Amino acid sequence: MRSKFAWLRPHGQPWKRGADRTVFESAWIQVTDQVAIAPTGRPAKYGMVGFKNLAIAILPIHEDGSITLVGQYRFPLGDYSWELPEGGSPVDEHPLDGARRELAEETGLAAAEWREVMRTQLSNSVTDERMIGYLATGLSEAQGGHAPDETEAIALARVPFREALEAAMTGRIQDMLTVAMLLKGYHMAREGALAGALARAMLE
Amino acid sequence: MRSKFAWLRPHGQPWKRGADRTVFESAWIQVTDQVAIAPTGRPAKYGMVGFKNLAIAILPIHEDGSITLVGQYRFPLGDYSWELPEGGSPVDEHPLDGARRELAEETGLAAAEWREVMRTQLSNSVTDERMIGYLATGLSEAQGGHAPDETEAIALARVPFREALEAAMTGRIQDMLTVAMLLKGYHMAREGALAGALARAMLE
Repeated sequence: MRSKFAWLRPHGQPWKRGADRTVFESAWIQVTDQVAIAPTGRPAKYGMVGFKNLAIAILPIHEDGSITLVGQYRFPLGDYSWELPEGGSPVDEHPLDGARRELAEETGLAAAEWREVMRTQLSNSVTDERMIGYLATGLSEAQGGHAPDETEAIALARVPFREALEAAMTGRIQDMLTVAMLLKGYHMAREGALAGALARAMLE
Repeated sequence: MRSKFAWLRPHGQPWKRGADRTVFESAWIQVTDQVAIAPTGRPAKYGMVGFKNLAIAILPIHEDGSITLVGQYRFPLGDYSWELPEGGSPVDEHPLDGARRELAEETGLAAAEWREVMRTQLSNSVTDERMIGYLATGLSEAQGGHAPDETEAIALARVPFREALEAAMTGRIQDMLTVAMLLKGYHMAREGALAGALARAMLE
């Protein structure tokens, strides 16, 4: 019998890294221009974007199957974007501490239960950015409450899970962390990974 | 009665953009350092990564419910990554032409039916990178076949959809485009958006 996941094994040679030079640095990223040898043996130059923070996304689900979303203008694409609470966690911080902080700052909520439900690489041909996604339940008002950063003007909306998912499936929500985490919530609700009453409230 | 999606409306002021300066450019990205005014009125500097290509991901589903994945070493994180066929499409190309080309180059497959199933922003606080995801069915061998780029050493695997999804849900596959598109395929199969026989083959 074929061994499950045997196909996941690596093939061939990894990239070899040569000298690198930092060409830009900000509080969030460090861009380097690197000399490299491709797995095919071909020499290459690689402009790589290193991220200083781990991206964190939180899917905060209320008992009635609704979720809390945040709305804000995003600089790079210039559009208004409704998203899950998200933020950056520095490498020396435990990601869960970052998740608690971002949830409180952006939504004024605290969660009694946290589950890590996703780890992904966001754009792995050009950046080293990684994300962790948490599901937060047992929600209540956080002490201190809503306290966005100085450049953040954040709106809040509490909406049925299915309506947020529909907004994502029809292109009204385009933030990838949000789209992927809503689909993950759907998968968990469908596959019995959530309490039955909560799953029913989310899917109905 | 509350109007559906009324909560999606924008609030407040957009970012204002001032002078920008290109600090790095490669075949794939252009990094700019920009002066900006935040929605809160606070002045800010914004280091932004502009992408020259649209990212494309293809979920190629065979009649028996299996899918074709590609494996390769990725430079930025240094790991071996099993993913959907993916690539970049220049702005002057129709994304579907890019998708046909990438599918043929990476897997040697052609598809009779193409459906656009996802449009997202990949890291919208730092980059302007966008992606389009296609579902490809009616698969056959492409004329010309497998023809990777000079820096690509690509392995192929044809695996049951559910096994690929399980690999993604357990962290064995971490590429975000792949994780999100596998979850999208699951959602479509569950919600009646695919032909019944195909959906059953994917979910069994």
